[in-house]
Amino acid sequence: MAFQGKKLINDPKDVVTEFIEGLVETYPGLQFLDGFPEVKVVLRADVSSSTYDKVAIISGGGSGHEPAHAGFVGEGMLTAAICGDVFASPPVDSILAGIRAVTGPMGCLLIVKNYTGDRLNFGLAAEQAKSEGYKVETVIVGDDCALPPPRGIAGRRGLAGTILVHKVAGAAAAAGLSLAEVATEAKCASEMVGTMGVALSVCTLPGQVTSDRLGPGKMELGLGIHGEPGAALADIQPVDVVVSHVLNQILSPETNYVPITRGNRVVLMINGLGATPVMELMIASGKAVPKLQLEHGLAVDRVYTGSFMTSLDMAGFSISIMKADETILQRLDAATKAPSWPVGVDGNHPPAKIPVPVPPSRSRKSDESLSRPPQLNQQGQILEAAIEAAANAVINLMDSLNEWDGKVGDGDCGSTMSRGATAILEDIKKYDIFCKAAYAQLSASSQSVVTAKQWAEALEASIAAVSKYGGASAGYRTLLDALIPASSMLQERLNAGDVPYTAFVLSSEAAVVGAESTKDMQAQAGRSTYVSGEILSSVPDPGAMAAASWYRAAALAVKDKYGASS
Amino acid sequence: MAFQGKKLINDPKDVVTEFIEGLVETYPGLQFLDGFPEVKVVLRADVSSSTYDKVAIISGGGSGHEPAHAGFVGEGMLTAAICGDVFASPPVDSILAGIRAVTGPMGCLLIVKNYTGDRLNFGLAAEQAKSEGYKVETVIVGDDCALPPPRGIAGRRGLAGTILVHKVAGAAAAAGLSLAEVATEAKCASEMVGTMGVALSVCTLPGQVTSDRLGPGKMELGLGIHGEPGAALADIQPVDVVVSHVLNQILSPETNYVPITRGNRVVLMINGLGATPVMELMIASGKAVPKLQLEHGLAVDRVYTGSFMTSLDMAGFSISIMKADETILQRLDAATKAPSWPVGVDGNHPPAKIPVPVPPSRSRKSDESLSRPPQLNQQGQILEAAIEAAANAVINLMDSLNEWDGKVGDGDCGSTMSRGATAILEDIKKYDIFCKAAYAQLSASSQSVVTAKQWAEALEASIAAVSKYGGASAGYRTLLDALIPASSMLQERLNAGDVPYTAFVLSSEAAVVGAESTKDMQAQAGRSTYVSGEILSSVPDPGAMAAASWYRAAALAVKDKYGASS
Repeated sequence: MAFQGKKLINDPKDVVTEFIEGLVETYPGLQFLDGFPEVKVVLRADVSSSTYDKVAIISGGGSGHEPAHAGFVGEGMLTAAICGDVFASPPVDSILAGIRAVTGPMGCLLIVKNYTGDRLNFGLAAEQAKSEGYKVETVIVGDDCALPPPRGIAGRRGLAGTILVHKVAGAAAAAGLSLAEVATEAKCASEMVGTMGVALSVCTLPGQVTSDRLGPGKMELGLGIHGEPGAALADIQPVDVVVSHVLNQILSPETNYVPITRGNRVVLMINGLGATPVMELMIASGKAVPKLQLEHGLAVDRVYTGSFMTSLDMAGFSISIMKADETILQRLDAATKAPSWPVGVDGNHPPAKIPVPVPPSRSRKSDESLSRPPQLNQQGQILEAAIEAAANAVINLMDSLNEWDGKVGDGDCGSTMSRGATAILEDIKKYDIFCKAAYAQLSASSQSVVTAKQWAEALEASIAAVSKYGGASAGYRTLLDALIPASSMLQERLNAGDVPYTAFVLSSEAAVVGAESTKDMQAQAGRSTYVSGEILSSVPDPGAMAAASWYRAAALAVKDKYGASS
Repeated sequence: MAFQGKKLINDPKDVVTEFIEGLVETYPGLQFLDGFPEVKVVLRADVSSSTYDKVAIISGGGSGHEPAHAGFVGEGMLTAAICGDVFASPPVDSILAGIRAVTGPMGCLLIVKNYTGDRLNFGLAAEQAKSEGYKVETVIVGDDCALPPPRGIAGRRGLAGTILVHKVAGAAAAAGLSLAEVATEAKCASEMVGTMGVALSVCTLPGQVTSDRLGPGKMELGLGIHGEPGAALADIQPVDVVVSHVLNQILSPETNYVPITRGNRVVLMINGLGATPVMELMIASGKAVPKLQLEHGLAVDRVYTGSFMTSLDMAGFSISIMKADETILQRLDAATKAPSWPVGVDGNHPPAKIPVPVPPSRSRKSDESLSRPPQLNQQGQILEAAIEAAANAVINLMDSLNEWDGKVGDGDCGSTMSRGATAILEDIKKYDIFCKAAYAQLSASSQSVVTAKQWAEALEASIAAVSKYGGASAGYRTLLDALIPASSMLQERLNAGDVPYTAFVLSSEAAVVGAESTKDMQAQAGRSTYVSGEILSSVPDPGAMAAASWYRAAALAVKDKYGASS
């Protein structure tokens, strides 16, 4: 179970320098000091210590937290970021080099996450810089809320809340404030923010094996950003529950880590830990906001969702909550050129949702088509039985469809169709299940009872529409390879004078034969075209099998009903 | 090996709607249509179909590609994004609802990734919208370069290059161009871009088990964005090699997928597939740019590095290359409020690196201290032997240190110290290895030969400095628990009149005893404070063990040398 962690890197020793090289290729506003491998400092390309007339804001620490800290270098945020090796404090000389490169007469503020190594090295660099005549202030950030106080002299860890402190300090400096004023605002901000993390996986250091500390189905709560074990190991819960737990912990009146009480205004940061998809981060944001509002009585002024302070490739997120007043909001909203600070997050929220527009001409008709007659006629009952049987056939076939699709596609054919079929069963009293083309064909008929011939024509029209827009035809390894033979057989048997339900059943047998024959076809349409023939020949096309299956179930249901009632 | 994929979600059926709810909480400029669960449409909050005087740009498709497509909605890019279920095309009615919600008299352009389902559903919606009187054009994007032509009627897949097409079309629409003109620019852009992906893992659909299709040490090349198998499975290579391979494939003159030849200008996109850390993406960018310039003779005008079009939680990236001319660059650089379009990427590159600044007063001294005397005196030789022995002791202890640190810290103590020790061995002829405080203490002496007493005072001064800035003292479970007893013993033995090397060896024994006693200490400083006492008692503090180890090796080396020469 312990494998070399998979990474797209070269030599593990070079990851930080190569990261910086890529960073400056991406962002023309950034430069680095030519001191690899020891000195790894990213700075604003438009700042020179000899001319810079603002307070320089300098942060940094061990690498592995990208985009922090180098991605937050830019006008209005950090002036320079000092990068250590992965999870290792930068050497004193690197910090000094960064201070010297960007600090002008207004001085510089060092923003340091509360780790012993960082405090030590930034502290020594600050002493040295002062002895060289620089004005230097330091603010230590310890926003972790995972563990009960006291934590000995180590104090609380610096986590993602540090990014908010960077922004406040950077905006204050850009506004032209003095070093003392900027340091005061930064310190105040650092005391207003609390953070707690949750992870589904342990991060893997470049070149090392992946730890299996967390087993399947487990998550860690209250972890740091260096792979250190969390405060608690628990079974994975729905994210709703996780978010509630984390918010309660951050806002706990027992620890009193952040001075936030009911009626306060706050900003929220949902921070991905490196391998967490945006989808999951946004789901957490969407849950955290109403919980903060309704359960904690807080107004949420801003939401920052993204991956800001990561732990290499850890899956999970941290939540930060910062008490917001007008000054802090102004600093957070101030323009910045730092590439990784989120955009489009300021301003007031309009109503989140607006009604689905329906053209006036269609609205009445649409309502009408959705209302079910109180009493179904015989044909209606047969149709209903057929639909139910078809939907159940698709649901029963879910696992096989997923398995086939896992080989030739993305593995979700069964789940997707089963979800659709379940919805049909739920909505069967009102659901308009036939595709537009079939519906148009049927509704064109003025008769109140639809004939078997008309059903056959509707099927044919549906096939034609799918073929036109999808671009597929017979032999392309698609659902048409079930439906085309079915349609041909249906027309043929009806023309030959068969009883309709007999023709339908024979037609459904043709559908099944057609679907199974897709095993021998090379894909010509759809995602299966990207899969090798060898894999394809081992399974039938899942779409064709699904179509044959529901079609056959419908046919047998019609035969049962029709046969029983005729 | 097949476990339920770990995700921070609630019901897998609700991931898309909950994503959208979080998205609009994060970005006040976005709204959604109130049609969950069927209609999932994100649109600009500032656009209404009755008043919108620009061409609306509409895209979408299956979800699971976040931030695409909803994160690219905003002035200057998409007007609306239609979201299907995960990896499933959105229903025709959703697409229609989106068209109706944002399309004004200028009409709308549908940008559709080339998948059968999307072509079908967007095509049917376009037909219906036209029948309702809307002006609608459609551009299909198929930028995949992984497979040799021809690919049957399916054609090439739409991948991350689609984002660049969105940007070109959005900027053209924002500039006030007509529907025909916008469609022409978008189609032209779609023909200029090629993409190919590489993955280290298969993505896991919400609620399903994680596939183990790729084994350890393997990667897939030329994959799609829906977990479909790649064109080739290969052993993981350094990212340098991977990038070269992918660039060659995209620019292959055999397939001629993109009309790019030597001397052309291009833009580059390195797109993370969902679980790829920024560090790895930037490393790929840093490698791709010089390769494009030097090996392919192309000028790289812009670099977009980030996660734009993902596949849920897949680890890996795709590379897109688009031929750039002045019009396309202007469109790509145009301002947009779309939250997920990268910022700070336009403009010309200054020199990437600048010299490390060294204060004039120090530069001569620093050069001097770095030059090694041609011939070491006896004391110098002993010092060198001690340093070598100390460095080798640390290197030999690497695995144990990593193991201990894995339990109580982040697992890299051994690797980090070993890297430092290796650098010391390499630089031993010139390296200034003693911490500033010790150095200052020694250089204050005017004698050319440093006495044992002075060494002892230097050690004491170093301990004081570490204690001051780190805030730790004896009993805090840090390296001081090795060094403090060592220092006391050294002073004591020297005062008692022991031969210096004997005092040193006795002192090193005290260091070892001190380091081993950390097993019984509760952590008071450093990251170990966040770890439970139960885990701590199973291992000594790695920092203390490392210190004792190098100190003891140095003492034994001095004894050997000194004993031999005296």
